[in-house]
Amino acid sequence: MKLCHTAFAVSAFAVTAGAYAQQAPKPEDQIRYRQSIMNVMGRQFGMLNAMSKGDVPYNKDAAVKAAGLAETLSTLPLPLFGPGLDKGAPTKASTKIWSEPDKFKAALEKMQGEVKKLSGAADDAAALKTVVGDVGKACKGCHDDYREKEFRN
Amino acid sequence: MKLCHTAFAVSAFAVTAGAYAQQAPKPEDQIRYRQSIMNVMGRQFGMLNAMSKGDVPYNKDAAVKAAGLAETLSTLPLPLFGPGLDKGAPTKASTKIWSEPDKFKAALEKMQGEVKKLSGAADDAAALKTVVGDVGKACKGCHDDYREKEFRN
Repeated sequence: MKLCHTAFAVSAFAVTAGAYAQQAPKPEDQIRYRQSIMNVMGRQFGMLNAMSKGDVPYNKDAAVKAAGLAETLSTLPLPLFGPGLDKGAPTKASTKIWSEPDKFKAALEKMQGEVKKLSGAADDAAALKTVVGDVGKACKGCHDDYREKEFRN
Repeated sequence: MKLCHTAFAVSAFAVTAGAYAQQAPKPEDQIRYRQSIMNVMGRQFGMLNAMSKGDVPYNKDAAVKAAGLAETLSTLPLPLFGPGLDKGAPTKASTKIWSEPDKFKAALEKMQGEVKKLSGAADDAAALKTVVGDVGKACKGCHDDYREKEFRN
């Protein structure tokens, strides 16, 4: 039993240390984290888009919160599309991301720039409306090029 | 074909309007959103925890960013544990959440309060260390009571 406990403790430590100290968590966890970020970011954009179209009433506090959250999230995913993270869990990420990383990086940075504009505009309904379209185009452009329709392994 | 196009247009509108105007997206999408929020929040806490333990070097900018993100995210999930969202996709959320919603709400609000303290402490390594433990306890307490070990349908 002692050996068993020790093995468990070492294993638990390895997971924790591996996740943060060695910066090498399991690809499946990184892919899940990447998908989670994109999902939450997409939901914030969806709400801002709905407000700009009048599908839901404009709400300044909610818009500022959503835009700020989207901006912070937009800064996270680039390293999660790095080497070794092209597979390991079902993903819609196109293999083109890994075959043309510089082009992908430029597209992602374009998105980051556009999302940043949301934060500057979210406290005003008219201003928000003018930038939402550009952000949507940046999302769509990158998805058209780098997101598959179906999950692959 | 015209009928077909109309039906598609109405259907597409219903999805968009349903997602935001009627506040009734599909349970599976809400469950996925809930899981994404918890995943991203957990990762921020994991990084702050690792910094407080010395597993990774303390970095003020990264800590402040992670704590702020965790705080914003902590305000989102409560409505995603609402009526009708107990099933619809594989989930680890215990059915107890829906059978004792007031108790669950109190536990979630406790977590929100603790996570808020992270933001106030993240710009100082020693202060961060003192609050991380309490946040961890709030996470664990809620997970022990309301998160299953395995996914259920």
